[in-house]
Parts: sequence; structure tokens; C-alpha cells
Amino acid sequence: MSALDDLRAALAEISDLGRARALLSWDEWTQMPPRGAAVRAEQLSTLSRLRHERLASDDLGRLLDRARAEVKDAPYDSFEASLVRMTTRHWEKARRVPPELRAEITRQTSISEHAWEEARDASDFRAFLPYLERMTALARRYLECFEFDHPYDPLLDDYEPGMKTAEVRPVLEALRDGLRPLLADIAASGAEVDNSCLYGDFPVDAQKRLAREVLEALPLQEDAWRVDETVHPFATGIGVSDLRITTRFDRAYIGAALWAVIHEAGHAMYHNGIDPALERTPLCGSVSLGFDESQSRLWENWIGRGRPYLAHLHPRLRELFPGQFADVDTEGLYQAASRVQPSLIRIEADEVTYNLHIALRFELELQIIEDRLALSDLPEAWNALVGDYLGLEVPDDAHGVLQDIHWASGSFGYFPTYSLGNVIAGQLWEAARMELPDMDAQLGAGEMGPLRDWLGERLYRHGAKLLPAEMVDRVCGGSLDPAPLLGYLRDRFGGVYGLEAAETATPSVS
Amino acid sequence: MSALDDLRAALAEISDLGRARALLSWDEWTQMPPRGAAVRAEQLSTLSRLRHERLASDDLGRLLDRARAEVKDAPYDSFEASLVRMTTRHWEKARRVPPELRAEITRQTSISEHAWEEARDASDFRAFLPYLERMTALARRYLECFEFDHPYDPLLDDYEPGMKTAEVRPVLEALRDGLRPLLADIAASGAEVDNSCLYGDFPVDAQKRLAREVLEALPLQEDAWRVDETVHPFATGIGVSDLRITTRFDRAYIGAALWAVIHEAGHAMYHNGIDPALERTPLCGSVSLGFDESQSRLWENWIGRGRPYLAHLHPRLRELFPGQFADVDTEGLYQAASRVQPSLIRIEADEVTYNLHIALRFELELQIIEDRLALSDLPEAWNALVGDYLGLEVPDDAHGVLQDIHWASGSFGYFPTYSLGNVIAGQLWEAARMELPDMDAQLGAGEMGPLRDWLGERLYRHGAKLLPAEMVDRVCGGSLDPAPLLGYLRDRFGGVYGLEAAETATPSVS
Repeated sequence: MSALDDLRAALAEISDLGRARALLSWDEWTQMPPRGAAVRAEQLSTLSRLRHERLASDDLGRLLDRARAEVKDAPYDSFEASLVRMTTRHWEKARRVPPELRAEITRQTSISEHAWEEARDASDFRAFLPYLERMTALARRYLECFEFDHPYDPLLDDYEPGMKTAEVRPVLEALRDGLRPLLADIAASGAEVDNSCLYGDFPVDAQKRLAREVLEALPLQEDAWRVDETVHPFATGIGVSDLRITTRFDRAYIGAALWAVIHEAGHAMYHNGIDPALERTPLCGSVSLGFDESQSRLWENWIGRGRPYLAHLHPRLRELFPGQFADVDTEGLYQAASRVQPSLIRIEADEVTYNLHIALRFELELQIIEDRLALSDLPEAWNALVGDYLGLEVPDDAHGVLQDIHWASGSFGYFPTYSLGNVIAGQLWEAARMELPDMDAQLGAGEMGPLRDWLGERLYRHGAKLLPAEMVDRVCGGSLDPAPLLGYLRDRFGGVYGLEAAETATPSVS
Repeated sequence: MSALDDLRAALAEISDLGRARALLSWDEWTQMPPRGAAVRAEQLSTLSRLRHERLASDDLGRLLDRARAEVKDAPYDSFEASLVRMTTRHWEKARRVPPELRAEITRQTSISEHAWEEARDASDFRAFLPYLERMTALARRYLECFEFDHPYDPLLDDYEPGMKTAEVRPVLEALRDGLRPLLADIAASGAEVDNSCLYGDFPVDAQKRLAREVLEALPLQEDAWRVDETVHPFATGIGVSDLRITTRFDRAYIGAALWAVIHEAGHAMYHNGIDPALERTPLCGSVSLGFDESQSRLWENWIGRGRPYLAHLHPRLRELFPGQFADVDTEGLYQAASRVQPSLIRIEADEVTYNLHIALRFELELQIIEDRLALSDLPEAWNALVGDYLGLEVPDDAHGVLQDIHWASGSFGYFPTYSLGNVIAGQLWEAARMELPDMDAQLGAGEMGPLRDWLGERLYRHGAKLLPAEMVDRVCGGSLDPAPLLGYLRDRFGGVYGLEAAETATPSVS
């Protein structure tokens, strides 16, 4: 056996433990009888611990040393070189955090998440404050395990490997500064966009049929996925050809199931497109959370809310829900999917305001980590930014600072990946449009294969061989750039809201 | 931390790995997209290996030594003493088998099972013979790892801990020798029992409703189980309060779903009844496969095919399937559930002939392990015994020696546990009837709580604290005894077939 073979065997074991954990978690959210929860938490914790012990082990370090010598002449983006390079990165990170600290974070996260749930239900930030203080203190102890230019860097690195605060900050600030005048223009236009066709009474059985048909028409490998119901939709992979999509059905709003299904299918298509040769290695995943989100958002918004796809879907919507869509033409459906309305809750936000929700969270996270904001002042700071960015008054903390679980989980550094996903989707879309001139006609005919194949060739099949910055450069040329996203948004919503700037843009972009 | 605490922590990890494996396996059979199979096999193998490494480790041996000193004054059936004693047993067994042999068995089992599937489909024993020879040779190498009085002992011990061939053989032979005259009497009676009401067209939706209602009416803890469809029904536990029941639906035969569901629920009730304090220890399981089967058979046959329960179920069957049951009275339904008809396939056998199917397999296994039968002569020997015990001619190997997967899996020693389950069920039933005089009336009213509580108190809650022989003595007094089972069968089927001996028996036994 070569050193690389030995390394692969060790990594396969680590992968199997991680995938088993993913299945136990999927099962917990979709299948498990309620009383299974207590033991399930222990099982998940054991699998995480065993996986981590192996990842951080001296043995793996020795295997990496031996394999490194063996692959030193392999090309940078070859399987062998990427495997050794990326695994070394994981191994070094895993070893920097003392097991005691890791265990303490796991323990406190569970406690804090429960406290958050209660505090949110009671809309009582003060009740949550001590837990937030503990999670923030743990995040500080965690980041101190690493060397950094900016204390936010190690946190960001867990989700966007290699990305620095100094790179991300200007991108997200430029995005914010481009969105604010767009939102102001939309508000000033006085135009009213009617999305009432999306609201009403949509029998869940018909919604389930729609969800299944939508998924079956997407370019997902046959017999390699399933869809289940859950409270908070997600997608997970148990293998390249074993994808689990989840969704929820809201009887009063057809958009919940329709776009959630396409969103999660976007994640699934990405993971389904990874080269099977990467299976059971740490390369068998997405480049980063941002790249993962770029696929869910690209399929959800650029495709799923785009004119060609909606035109294609429209007749079927009419058949399934005649009462809702009989009097709506395709342009009306497209308009309904394009309504901009500032709102308090991030996960209900439209495409324009969504990234402002992220901008305010990112700003507050930076202030916290840079020690410029006392946690007790967080609700005030939150509410001020909501007023500033969205023009809304926050009635209570449940609709404000307590709405997301992320900080309760200690997941500082996670929020920006949502906006990075949108930014990357914008860049990928621009590149795809250049190279696939017939895309609109194809999407209008329900043919999504060519786009999927383009994405598969450029992005999916490579898995996590490259860092996000490397992959952006490889696929889009250059670095993270919010301009394509801003251009797309101004074109689409400028068109819908009759803004002047939109007149000069290509109307077919949406 | 005490030594016992340390031991418990190590055992909890081993348990979590085993339960995770059980969930992955359940998922494979009930939920997994077909293309997930290849990676799933690897994941299952990794979890098995990691679990086994821990179980056979020097570390666990040291923990056991320390804990043994600590519990030396604890009562024999206390949690502490049982934990150390039973874990020591598992540890010693695990260490006797070299890892290479274990790996080879795992590898060959998978190959042999595939070969068996093909050979069975082609009804070609010769094609399967080389694989059977390899699995038999591996079984010999396996049993040579142990000391034994009889070479079959170590094989049996994997399923019935501590049981010896010398104990089991006379029990199963007495059972066989009691069943053969009963079957002959039934045949000689000339009576025809009509079970046509169980065959016809049973819409699957209505069957699913029936299955759910039957399960909900059984004394299973609420929110602690679920039921799914599969090809070969089974039940598995992911935790004491997380039971997975599976079943299949045959549109042409209502019995498949009805009694399979009760059978699997019997397993589930047993595991659901284990003292939650045993969770995440090796004591959190059934005493043996025979004891596990005693519960599935007791609930399936003694209850589910018994007069009181069928009388209770009858009105609902009539509502759901009026075409089938409108003209059948309760006695007719009971008779239909009591038809005896020798057949070639074990899993379709009735209560009387089932144990003759097991008797012939047990005899052949002993001949193989005692080296009294050449494997190439197995079909001939099989067919001769089928003629002898069941009076049938075997038309081809698919309906004969190739029908079961067990030998392909190398699971010699497994078959007798089916009959031991029936024997134990007979003994438990006799004991329960003595102590629960109102049981018939209760079952007739659909009240199964008292019986379940009796079984829970005597058997379920103790998990695997005792060996099978110890538990038989504890609950039934004495040792394994086929007489109660034979008495029950002669009463029930003697009544149905109008045999003379039945007239002197208590007619209410069934």
C-alpha cells in the first residue's frame, strides 16, 4: 500500500463517521419518533467525538507527512495534491482547539439553544443575555486558538476556508451600499406589485404533487434523492448519490414549498455532481458554505423566480390550483415572484432586502468580536440598523435580535456566507449566460440540463479541491465581486418597479 | 469517577456505534434512494469495525478488571453485577476471534449472499455450492476459536448465550416428535378448514389504515415507534423509546400485513419495555434471539390469531373489507386463522408445520457441523426430510434448500432460535394464564395492557441481565420445555380439526 492509500483508508473512516452522523441528524428531523430525542443526542455526540479524535490524531499527521512526500510532483488541482493539501488544513485546524474547549462549546451550545428558544418565545432578550455572553466568550477562546490578522478571521474560516475579513468586508459593504439606493428607488417608484395569487388556500396534497414534479423535472440523478417534510427545510448528503431534500408546506402560501424545494434541490444538485471518485474523502463536499448557498440561491432565484421557468411552470400551477392562477397571466406570476417589501424576518425576506438583513448581522458580529459593542446594547443596535436599512420599527425582540438561532449556537461568521452565496451566484450566472446563449429558451422549455452540465463541469465535480477564492477565480475570473448580483437585481426589480436605470439594461437578464 | 462510571462511558460509546449502525441499516431497507447502496455498505462496515475494535480492546479489559472489584458484593441480578458479568462475556468472545478471520467472514458473507440470490433465482444449488463450502469452512474456523463440548455450541452461543447443543437438541427433538403425530392426526381428520376470507383483493390504503390501527391499539408507548414498508419485515430499536417496525402489504392476502405487523410489534414491545436505566449498555437488549422471537410469536399467534382478539378485531375488518368479511362470523375468522397446510416455504408455514421446517434445518446443520453430511448431498438430504416431515415433494431447490439466506450468511446456529422462541412463548403463555385469570375477557375487549405489564415486569424490563436458561428458570420455573407449546397447539388445532384428544383439553386455551 502506498502512503496515499493508507491516508485514504483513514479518511474514509472519518468520512463514514461524518456521513453516519448526517443520517442520524436527518432522521432526527424527518423520521424519528419524538421520544427518541434524548438518546439520539448522545449518539450524535459520540459520532462527532470519534470523528474529531481521528481527524486531530497524531496518526493522521504521520500519514499526511508520508503522503505529502509521495504527491509532491502532482499538479496543484490533482486529486492527490488536493487531498493532502486540504486534509492538512483540516488536521491543523482540528489540532489547534483543545478537546476540553471543544467539549465545552458542544455542551454550552445545546444549553444556549434551548435557552434561546424559550427567550424567543417569550421575546425576552434579557433572559437570553447570559447565554449569549457565554457563547461569545467561548467564541473568543476558540478564535484565540488561531493566529489571525483580524479576530473575526478564524470564525469566518470555519465556513469560508481561507477567506479573510479584510476581503469579505468590502464586498459585503459594497453590496449593502448598492442595495440601499435600489430599495429607496423601489419605494420611491410608488409602484404596487400584486403577489396575492401566491396566497390563499393551497391543499397540501396538491402542493406535494407539485413539489415532486418540480424535483423530478430538475436535473437530479434518478434514484439518488428523496424528499421529506420538516419544520426548517434543509438538504443533506449521505453520499454523492444519496441526497436528502426536505421541505415544508404552508397551506396559505404556495411559495413556501415551491421555492424551498428548488432551493434545497440546488444544494442537492451540487453535491450530486461531485466526482464519485472523491467519495469518502474530505474533498467530497462543497468549496464552502458560500458556494453551497450560491447553488441553492441560483436555482431558487435566478431560475425558480425567473421569467422563463415561471412561464414553463405556469400551466401546471393553473391545473393544480385553478382558483388561484386562472386569472393570472405569466407576466403576473413573474411580478408576484418579484415583490419587494421590507420585512422584519430574514427568512421571509425578498431578494433585495435579504442581503440587508445579512449586512446588519455582519456589522453587529464585527462590532461584537472587535469589542465595540456591549452585548446588553445589542437589541438597541439591532433595532437602529433595521430602522436605518429597512425603514422599519422592531416591535419586540422575537421579531428582532432573537429571530435567528445562529448566535445561540455560537455560529459567529456564518451569516456573511448567505450574502457571499448570492454574490457568487451572481458571478456564476453572468459567466453561464456568456457561455450558454440559448439558456433562456432552454429554461422556458424546462430544459435545465445544459446549465446543470455547465455548473457540473466548472464547479460541482471538483468538490472541495480548491479554496473559495481559488474557485471564484477559476470559474468567474478574478475575485469576489458584488457587481453582477447588483446588476441582476437592478435589472430584474428595476423592470418590475419601472425604475429609470432599468431601461438601459438587458430585460432578459431575469 | 468510579471504575463503573468509566466502564459505562466506554460501553455507551460502543452502544452508540451499534445503534447508529442499526439506524443506517433500517434506513437502507426503508428510506434510502437505491443509488445510495454502495456507500452505505462501506459506512455500515466502518461502524461495525469501530464498534468491534472497542469491544475487543485491552482498554475495555482493564476497565472490566477495575469494575469487577468494585461490584463484587452486588447481587447477581443487580445492574452493576450484570453489567460487568455480561460485558466480560462479550469481551472474551470478541477477543477470541482474530480480526483477520472476522474481516474475511464479513467479506465472504457479502459475496456469498449475492451468489445465493442469483442461485436461488436460477434454482441452481450447484452454482451456490462453492460459496456454501467457503461459508461452512469459515464457520469451522470461527468455532475453533472457542472451547466447546460440541462444535455446534459456539455457533449457537452467538444467538442463545450459554445454551449448549446438548440442552437444545432434546427440546427440539421432543417438539418435532410431538408435532408429527399432531400433523398426522390433522391430515387424518379429513376436516377442511376454509381460509378463503383472508385471500382476495385488499386495497393497500385500507390495509395501511388497519395496520396503523392495530399498532395504535397495542400497548406500545406513544411517540416511541413508527412503521414503514419493506420487502422483508423486521423490527429494530434505535433506543428504548425509538422503535422501528416494518411490514409489507400483499394486496391478495390480508394476513401478510396483519400478522406481520403484530409479530414485529411483539419485538418492539419487548425492547420498548426495557428499563431505560439500561440504555446505552450491553444490557439494553433481549435475553437472546429465542426470547426476542418468543415475543413476536406470542403476540402474533397466541394473541393475534387467538379467538378473543380476532373477535375484537372482526367488526373493524368487516368495515374496512366488507366484500371479504361480511359473510364470515367470528368463529369462521378464527378457523381461517387456524388452517394447517404443509407447504414448502418456511416463512409461509402455519403454526404446526413451522417448527417442522426448523427441525429439518436444525438436523441438517448438526449433520454439517458434525461432518456427517457432504454439502453436495444437502439438497437430497433436504428433500428427503421434507418428504418425511411434511409429506411433500420438493420440485426445485428454490423451493427447497435455497429458500433461506441464513446459510449463505454463514448464520449456522440461527434457525433453532425460531423454535426456541415458540417453546418459550408457550411457557410464558402458560405462566401468564395462571396469573392473569381474566386475560381472555381482557383480550376480547382489546385490553392488552395487563398482559403487557405482566411480561414487562417479568421479562422486558430486565433486558439482557440474565442468560436465556437463567431467564427461563426465573419466569417459568425450570428449564426449556416444549410441553406447553405442544399442549397449546394440540388444544387449538385439535379443536379446529375436531381431534379426539382436544375434547379433554380446555377449549379456551386458544
